[in-house]
Amino acid sequence: MKYTVLGTNYVIRLDAGEKIIETLLSLCEREGIGSGFFNGLGAVREAELGHFDMATGAYSWVKLSGSYEIVALYGNVTVVDGKPFIHAHAALGDNTFAVRGGHLREAVVSATCEITLTRFRDDIGRKKDETTGLFLLDLKPGEG
Amino acid sequence: MKYTVLGTNYVIRLDAGEKIIETLLSLCEREGIGSGFFNGLGAVREAELGHFDMATGAYSWVKLSGSYEIVALYGNVTVVDGKPFIHAHAALGDNTFAVRGGHLREAVVSATCEITLTRFRDDIGRKKDETTGLFLLDLKPGEG
Amino acid sequence: MKYTVLGTNYVIRLDAGEKIIETLLSLCEREGIGSGFFNGLGAVREAELGHFDMATGAYSWVKLSGSYEIVALYGNVTVVDGKPFIHAHAALGDNTFAVRGGHLREAVVSATCEITLTRFRDDIGRKKDETTGLFLLDLKPGEG
Repeated sequence: MKYTVLGTNYVIRLDAGEKIIETLLSLCEREGIGSGFFNGLGAVREAELGHFDMATGAYSWVKLSGSYEIVALYGNVTVVDGKPFIHAHAALGDNTFAVRGGHLREAVVSATCEITLTRFRDDIGRKKDETTGLFLLDLKPGEG
Repeated sequence: MKYTVLGTNYVIRLDAGEKIIETLLSLCEREGIGSGFFNGLGAVREAELGHFDMATGAYSWVKLSGSYEIVALYGNVTVVDGKPFIHAHAALGDNTFAVRGGHLREAVVSATCEITLTRFRDDIGRKKDETTGLFLLDLKPGEG
Repeated sequence: MKYTVLGTNYVIRLDAGEKIIETLLSLCEREGIGSGFFNGLGAVREAELGHFDMATGAYSWVKLSGSYEIVALYGNVTVVDGKPFIHAHAALGDNTFAVRGGHLREAVVSATCEITLTRFRDDIGRKKDETTGLFLLDLKPGEG
């Protein structure tokens, strides 16, 4: 990973073999980023996508392996137990341009991955929701 | 809905049963947001997607019902007739990770929906275009 | 194309027949934008999507013609050889709401295309990577 900081914005490049979520987490830890959002594009050779089933309260997962363009990637950064936490969803296009998408657990970069991240002013946390078992955004009215 | 304001950025959480467009409109009204953009992720249990046909000048619609991950959600905020107006497109992934997408008329949150919205400085309007019948962005060269 | 500048943000409207990448490049040239990111929505009547094959180091391309909603569009702006350079990926939905996606070489607007672009403080360059033959982000640690 290489990155440039431009005020509250980060331009990030991930290289072949790097894991997107793991690498972004290490960037957030190093830079002390506690809230923000990012978008990205690029290509991956492995990815694990999830789909949450409200009835069972569990994710089903699919592991993709091959050549995929990232045709959508959006996520947010929060802080859970004092550590950065990333929640991202993605859509991936294969070599027939067909698209599959879901919750992005992790993906391994093939050619390159380019991400722009905008950092917000104050940390945002998450709190376990008893109904779903998910860690939902713990939002308090801010000051503007 | 819960939200935190961090300068010109909003971090928004929608809960089960809330309608995405309707809820964002109420946020924009309450906060006086007259221009900006947002991205989001999460899951919905109902959605209505549209596809605009230039030949007929009309949308065709599909209503989806089931379990869908939001794999792309982007929209902008403008002001029409003194009221906030939201234009959003979305791509939704089902439990086979297949993706459908189009103009997002409305969607009902299942597990959660997390949106980051960046507000711009001045209001942006829309004006009816006689050729298409659509309300297009009414842009005036700004001052930078 | 019409656009309004709001501080470091641009709200852009492309009209029927305009090419998205070509038009954004002319905007970046006119405004001297040397780094940033954009998202967009709208509809196109032609598009060329690419898929990069790591094995051959070449793109395969598909030309789409018909009626497509832009269901995801994200790209970044950099500077190569003193000229603005745009790297964008997109997902497009047809009138059955099926989605195809990949690297966006170019697309021609049908009804309208609405883009929000956020400009960063300093220019970002690209440099040819000998392994892949791609122009990768040339990042230098910034100052924050």
